[in-house]
Amino acid sequence: MSRASSAALGHRLERVRTRVAELELDALVVTHLPNVFYLSNFEASAAIAVVAPSRLYLITDFRYSAAVASLLAGPDAPPDAEPLQIEGSYDAALARLLDGPLAGGRFGFEAARMTVKQFRWLEDRLAGAETPAKGSLVAVDGIVERLRAVKDAGELDIFRRAGALLSEVATALLADGVVAAGRTELEVAADIDYRMKRAGFERPAFDTIVASGPNGALPHAHPTSRRIETGELVVVDFGGMLDGYAVDLTRTVAVGAVDARRRDMYRAVVESQRDAIAAIHAGVQSDAVDDAARVVLKREGLDDAFGHGLGHGLGLEIHEDPRMAKRRADGPPPVALEAGMVVTVEPGVYVPGVGGVRIEDDVVVTEHGVEQLTHVPLETGLL
Amino acid sequence: MSRASSAALGHRLERVRTRVAELELDALVVTHLPNVFYLSNFEASAAIAVVAPSRLYLITDFRYSAAVASLLAGPDAPPDAEPLQIEGSYDAALARLLDGPLAGGRFGFEAARMTVKQFRWLEDRLAGAETPAKGSLVAVDGIVERLRAVKDAGELDIFRRAGALLSEVATALLADGVVAAGRTELEVAADIDYRMKRAGFERPAFDTIVASGPNGALPHAHPTSRRIETGELVVVDFGGMLDGYAVDLTRTVAVGAVDARRRDMYRAVVESQRDAIAAIHAGVQSDAVDDAARVVLKREGLDDAFGHGLGHGLGLEIHEDPRMAKRRADGPPPVALEAGMVVTVEPGVYVPGVGGVRIEDDVVVTEHGVEQLTHVPLETGLL
Repeated sequence: MSRASSAALGHRLERVRTRVAELELDALVVTHLPNVFYLSNFEASAAIAVVAPSRLYLITDFRYSAAVASLLAGPDAPPDAEPLQIEGSYDAALARLLDGPLAGGRFGFEAARMTVKQFRWLEDRLAGAETPAKGSLVAVDGIVERLRAVKDAGELDIFRRAGALLSEVATALLADGVVAAGRTELEVAADIDYRMKRAGFERPAFDTIVASGPNGALPHAHPTSRRIETGELVVVDFGGMLDGYAVDLTRTVAVGAVDARRRDMYRAVVESQRDAIAAIHAGVQSDAVDDAARVVLKREGLDDAFGHGLGHGLGLEIHEDPRMAKRRADGPPPVALEAGMVVTVEPGVYVPGVGGVRIEDDVVVTEHGVEQLTHVPLETGLL
Repeated sequence: MSRASSAALGHRLERVRTRVAELELDALVVTHLPNVFYLSNFEASAAIAVVAPSRLYLITDFRYSAAVASLLAGPDAPPDAEPLQIEGSYDAALARLLDGPLAGGRFGFEAARMTVKQFRWLEDRLAGAETPAKGSLVAVDGIVERLRAVKDAGELDIFRRAGALLSEVATALLADGVVAAGRTELEVAADIDYRMKRAGFERPAFDTIVASGPNGALPHAHPTSRRIETGELVVVDFGGMLDGYAVDLTRTVAVGAVDARRRDMYRAVVESQRDAIAAIHAGVQSDAVDDAARVVLKREGLDDAFGHGLGHGLGLEIHEDPRMAKRRADGPPPVALEAGMVVTVEPGVYVPGVGGVRIEDDVVVTEHGVEQLTHVPLETGLL
């Protein structure tokens, strides 16, 4: 995993500290692991970071003591970091910090990332301590996630490499006839995952989807032992993690000649995706981009067959802000896209008994349009 | 993913309902996805189950409408299930159920699985409704997880197949010389993952670890582009998901001849694992098994080099109850092992600058001992 520079980390931490001060808090407790990594370069399956005004505390356990020592001694160390090794549980170590060196403060915690159980335990523990008052834990939401949504130059470099690499894998996959009649969905998925690893991806960004024929009508099908048949459409949706960042791509492959109905579905999705990408630029509302993808589908009578959102942000996680979807009364509110956001654009249509088509590419939002990260030929036989 | 029988689901739901009644609750809101699957056979990346006295409500979204309809119409349907499709958010759909058909009840929720944000939103929403009183949401913990810890006959069948399959993959891996001088850790990891997929595993159960030479001293190393050298120990730790269940295995491979110090580390870990497995039977305390693993390591002066717990439960998740670890003042309390629990036994020693050794097998706890699920030859050159 490549790391942000020490200066980039300093910049991120400074922005967090500004927001923490605006909220009249003394520190932010960061429990979501991708957020911990984003602020510290420290990658682990368990860790807590606490951003205080002049210190970044990194709480870790035995398994990571060598890794954290090496990080903090190296050139990509987060500024002013202090490691704390747990003895019993992470929550206990956090409590010892909050009622020890930081006692008396008001602490923001990530309400969307801390469980009710953790919170109540911590609240009880701090209420029992001498210094902190009840109410010293303040729910905050999305402080680090909002920073993460807009990528910095170092992150965009990784995305360009990752997009090019995923495109190579996809192009070779199509050229080599990996998706072919007689093969099972599971075999195709195994080949895709192997090719991603050999290309240099650390791991798949999610479980690879290979959905053939009628299975294509399930937007989130798992690969099965079903054998692909001639005349079918096969949706392949896969992604990889490179240097910690996720890229994501979908193509729909025609196996042999497919009938007019399937070709029409395919063309409609291609047009839908083009219209959506054309609608993207800094300042546009996320739901307006989703709307743009639906115009052609409505014209073709396929609007109801596209039941999911148009796309999602990419980053240290495969699904991040911003989400591009229809505006709904009880859904999350739309947001304005910003230059430097990286999103997928993935319209699809799903017709029970017939199959599905989805086409997905990754783009960077720019002032006046997009920079496309993935470049893979579409199925010419279907256009 | 193979499914539990309808009768097995009925039995699980009955046990949940008994516990819910004991706690004087009217229903249990299940938000943790492996728990939803365990009770319903419904597998998705989003879903909520609500276990009411005479109904199992399954809240899902558009993407899964075909899958849920097919499940409920099929032979492995959960008894008395009623599907609810969301319109906006999952939380809003849950609220409509709790202040609609179930209005006026007291509802248990999984406090270790619901975030503070979700909880507060739901609490506010229900407090504003006409019927439910504030306080209608009651924190409960581990109701479904405790059931899941003891496997039923159908689950043990899957574990036997999965253990045998993982053992085949591991044995072939060692026989074929996949771990060899000159290869990078990443190449070896890619081969392992490919072999698991080809053998029939749905996916790796976690990111495969290949830690060579000094990297072996990091208990949770990620594979790197480092090339393996002669004279080194290489820790390979990998696992697969079969029919939804996780199995997990570690072997340490000597590449060429290794020196006496490394051989001594290896032998100590082999003995430690044997002693720990010999200590397991129904009724033993989890920390006593961990203690048993440490006797030989202490004798060899390696106790401090074994800084993690001895093992963990396996099931729908790679890390489940029970945990076998040292008793600690601020850690979770030890538990008595029960027949039918499936656990890993994985002592290790980690010596900075030198390397690491870890050996891991999976066992079923029985009345008087264990049934071993994984069978892979140890490195004879090292014994």
